[in-house]
Amino acid sequence: MAKITFLPQNAEVSVREGISVLQAAAAAGISIDGNCAGKKTCGKCKVKIKQGDLSYCVDPNEKLSAVDRAAGYRLACCHRVSDGMVIEIPEAETTADRKKKLIRLPEGFQKNTAVQKICIQVRRTTLEEQESMDHSILKLLSLGKLAFRKNVLQKLPHILKEQEKITLTVLGREIIDVECGDRVDENYGVAVDIGTTTVLVMLWNLSTGQMAAIRGITNPQGSYGADVISRISYIDGDEEKLTVLKNAISEGINNCIQEFEKERKISHRNIYNFTVVGNTTMSHIFMGVDPSQLAKIPFAPVFTGSGDVAAAELGLMCHENASVYRAANIAGHVGSDITAGILTTDIVESKRKQLFIDIGTNGELVISGNGRTLTCSTAAGPAFEGSSIRQGMRAAKGAIERVDINEKDVEISVIGGCKPIGICGSGIIDAVGELVRKKIVNENGRIRTAGELKECGMSDRIADRVRQDESGKKYFVLYFDEDGKEDVSITQKDIREVQLAKGAIYAGITIMMNEIGISADELERISIAGAFGSYIRKQSAIHVGLLPEIDESRIISLGNSAGIGAAMLLLSTDYRAEADRAAEMIEHIELANRPEFQKQYMASMKFK
Amino acid sequence: MAKITFLPQNAEVSVREGISVLQAAAAAGISIDGNCAGKKTCGKCKVKIKQGDLSYCVDPNEKLSAVDRAAGYRLACCHRVSDGMVIEIPEAETTADRKKKLIRLPEGFQKNTAVQKICIQVRRTTLEEQESMDHSILKLLSLGKLAFRKNVLQKLPHILKEQEKITLTVLGREIIDVECGDRVDENYGVAVDIGTTTVLVMLWNLSTGQMAAIRGITNPQGSYGADVISRISYIDGDEEKLTVLKNAISEGINNCIQEFEKERKISHRNIYNFTVVGNTTMSHIFMGVDPSQLAKIPFAPVFTGSGDVAAAELGLMCHENASVYRAANIAGHVGSDITAGILTTDIVESKRKQLFIDIGTNGELVISGNGRTLTCSTAAGPAFEGSSIRQGMRAAKGAIERVDINEKDVEISVIGGCKPIGICGSGIIDAVGELVRKKIVNENGRIRTAGELKECGMSDRIADRVRQDESGKKYFVLYFDEDGKEDVSITQKDIREVQLAKGAIYAGITIMMNEIGISADELERISIAGAFGSYIRKQSAIHVGLLPEIDESRIISLGNSAGIGAAMLLLSTDYRAEADRAAEMIEHIELANRPEFQKQYMASMKFK
Repeated sequence: MAKITFLPQNAEVSVREGISVLQAAAAAGISIDGNCAGKKTCGKCKVKIKQGDLSYCVDPNEKLSAVDRAAGYRLACCHRVSDGMVIEIPEAETTADRKKKLIRLPEGFQKNTAVQKICIQVRRTTLEEQESMDHSILKLLSLGKLAFRKNVLQKLPHILKEQEKITLTVLGREIIDVECGDRVDENYGVAVDIGTTTVLVMLWNLSTGQMAAIRGITNPQGSYGADVISRISYIDGDEEKLTVLKNAISEGINNCIQEFEKERKISHRNIYNFTVVGNTTMSHIFMGVDPSQLAKIPFAPVFTGSGDVAAAELGLMCHENASVYRAANIAGHVGSDITAGILTTDIVESKRKQLFIDIGTNGELVISGNGRTLTCSTAAGPAFEGSSIRQGMRAAKGAIERVDINEKDVEISVIGGCKPIGICGSGIIDAVGELVRKKIVNENGRIRTAGELKECGMSDRIADRVRQDESGKKYFVLYFDEDGKEDVSITQKDIREVQLAKGAIYAGITIMMNEIGISADELERISIAGAFGSYIRKQSAIHVGLLPEIDESRIISLGNSAGIGAAMLLLSTDYRAEADRAAEMIEHIELANRPEFQKQYMASMKFK
Repeated sequence: MAKITFLPQNAEVSVREGISVLQAAAAAGISIDGNCAGKKTCGKCKVKIKQGDLSYCVDPNEKLSAVDRAAGYRLACCHRVSDGMVIEIPEAETTADRKKKLIRLPEGFQKNTAVQKICIQVRRTTLEEQESMDHSILKLLSLGKLAFRKNVLQKLPHILKEQEKITLTVLGREIIDVECGDRVDENYGVAVDIGTTTVLVMLWNLSTGQMAAIRGITNPQGSYGADVISRISYIDGDEEKLTVLKNAISEGINNCIQEFEKERKISHRNIYNFTVVGNTTMSHIFMGVDPSQLAKIPFAPVFTGSGDVAAAELGLMCHENASVYRAANIAGHVGSDITAGILTTDIVESKRKQLFIDIGTNGELVISGNGRTLTCSTAAGPAFEGSSIRQGMRAAKGAIERVDINEKDVEISVIGGCKPIGICGSGIIDAVGELVRKKIVNENGRIRTAGELKECGMSDRIADRVRQDESGKKYFVLYFDEDGKEDVSITQKDIREVQLAKGAIYAGITIMMNEIGISADELERISIAGAFGSYIRKQSAIHVGLLPEIDESRIISLGNSAGIGAAMLLLSTDYRAEADRAAEMIEHIELANRPEFQKQYMASMKFK
């Protein structure tokens, strides 16, 4: 056995000597980013071996730069553990940190929670007016007929013997708990947005309607694949593996709840209600439902409808009678995160022509107009998350997030204000947008040569950033280090990736607009979801051709709409009903099934 | 340790040497009749020691006749166990056997079960018409929005991969199971009437509405006390003891279910719904709710309302998502067995003036007229169950159940047609009724002397049956054995017991009639519940003064109305709603709180 330690968690685990770092991390319940689920193809699961054998490697050809290797970095999928090894996992929390900031309930939001805690004073019954305790309580509550859960009936005689003032917890049409005295304020709910990459867990006080705490954690399923397809292929219909991924999420949520307990001095027994949103695969796995068919034609989900589940059945830390509301999915690739997200807009009920767009590995689109609301999902690929980009990275410290090309040179902004080490999604769009705007990249996506650029009057400082590698492939240098060495660049292949991604999304937009018969300039509003929407520059998104060319003022950023929607669903049963109506009303279009898709896709790849 | 065997169960149990037979029986899960819960006062827990030490007794003064002692009988509460002992428990099943025969659904009864099993054919979805499985199913069922339980979502992809024909089990507004193929007929429910003495467990096929099997078992709680008061005092607010009694019932029900499985070749996994009725104490214990306050003024129940509980929470053998419906209680001493019982009558909704009467240790009465329906419970005592009567016994083999006094002599009928060994409830009423009719007992309940009777012209054969014991106390011999020895008699004290019992009941009837302003001759119907009602002679009940003097044709026997009501509640949600309405509408009168009760009670004790 080998005893190894993971940093920064400082988690010790004893595992079999010689298994991979990735396997050891999974055994320790720690997730390491990676897109290929240990298939050794993505080269993203970089860790730093702080102590231990640096040569104990499965695959000497691992996809790592010599610089990284020299600095002690190794790929977790390729490196073997040995006794005493100390492994540092690079920080990847910034995405989560950013997401946190983006939770704001809409103005004028009215809560109407499924849970109510009500304090009443129960008078002792007499022989003259013999009355059962349940009747006395129902009369005082005057909420009509409510069911009493078994535990409440069992506690009642003891509690009412002690005190006449009691607090009842009402969930839906059931009384799920009774406590001595006034405990109205100890009333919590948890809203969860299970993203493929990040899980956002929010604690809300259901009596006050205020957020009490929030945590964003890296989705612990990440150890089994970075995207839904690789997780589905990891599960491969195996019930045990499904359970592993299912438990990874519930344990992740429980860890957050334990931290809330410490941080806010609350008890998980006062958590009575959950809402959970996520893409359809996350939602299936969370429920322990095999997601296999979501990866196969015709991509039909097992379930889309919303529903309540006993939280105990899902192993969540909370009151014994707490329930979990899972929002409705819309289709195989349009999940309840979208249902929740559009709650922050008026896209379903208003008559305005508008577009909702949520970009990740898939781009989910919702468009409304002429009395219809359509949705589709486009396989944008991971370019906008930085994954298929050579120097792509998450929106973490050291990522270039903004690029300006002025008359003379290139200016960049880096998250954390430090030396850049890569480029994140919004940075890529910004960079490509600027390259297109400045015609450094032509309509077809080809990087012009330095010579061509200078002919057109481009400054040398800019034009000379176009270089070629030994095989003649061009790239554009965004940042040179102190020694003038090229440090962060956008390659021709990166631009192709962006073209594929934005082409897929724009093709989806075009097909949906055609379907309901509106044109781009008729769009009264474009709402962009997520952290991505909050950080991209609208102009760049238009220049890249990700969004139709409309006035910037009509483009708004929603913040973390899925998270906000999850909170709204937690705090208001009215919104649950609205979400159900929306999910029911929205028509789903399967792009793969559209004969025009391929043509439209090719056309949309161009830069205009 | 002592290894002992109980017959006829042939149950072996190892217990500590020297504990009482009663305690050993409890350890073996076997119930022995007794009214005093081991307090050694009732003398009813007679068992036969077939093998083992006959002298190993706690109390040499145990209440047993010399004949019984010589025959090897001992009291279970007083006798100690020793290794190798074989103990036979006298058969007490006849009451249950009788109860079984008394289940008949009302004519024209329409079932409308909470559970439906529906077989559908689900077409494979296509890319053109991508549809989630839950949506396809809801469309085919066309029952509106139903919730899917987690297990159903989990099973669906696997089941629909195998076969397109599936059977769904719908309980209320939830789909609780999915199976391959057509399984519509495998649809069962269980109706339970938890009597203090006997538990009736019925298996019904919910698809056909037919009874599939029935068992009546002695309430296993009997080892802890024969009546509700002794069981409450056994529990004495102790949670563990409450759990013991609670589990005794659920295990008793589970044993019946296991026998149904063998007998009917069914699986408990196809049992989806239960209904449970019983007196308020039984209903509290069944739910694991401390019944202590039912034994204390003001006798207020913890709960009276009806409700559904997950069967799994109660430890019942059935489908994992099965639910238990417990019918509403009305008051502390008027339980859901009465709510169920009156469903077999039209007492609540009709405008007829009528009386419903259910006689056991308590007599529960429901009376309607002039737009009101009242109920009360009278502490009749156990006389009518044969308990406080010297030679009283249950309605089992050897019990005198009928007595006729003609001009010349006394004729008796004995259950099982054998030599009489005692007298059961209906026999007592019949005997006392005849003694009153023949003026052998006077208005005040005094047995006339043989001389007095002869003076009035009574035949010697009859008059000479009045005898006196050594202390001068009179008794009337019902049966002489072959040798002319007095074998079964009614004592003066027995008659006093009957007076107390019938006085309490009649006082209740009178007070309720006064309350709603009707007189006895206005009563259009008297419905008598239970086995008791089916076996007593109406005329005798009138002679005794248990029932008001109305035309016999207006008195009907309902059979096992609580059992029938439980079955109706199992088979029809309409009746569940009706039972709730009835329980809500009926006004409860606490006799103990009526100033006129004592006077009325005294007056009602007379024979007229």
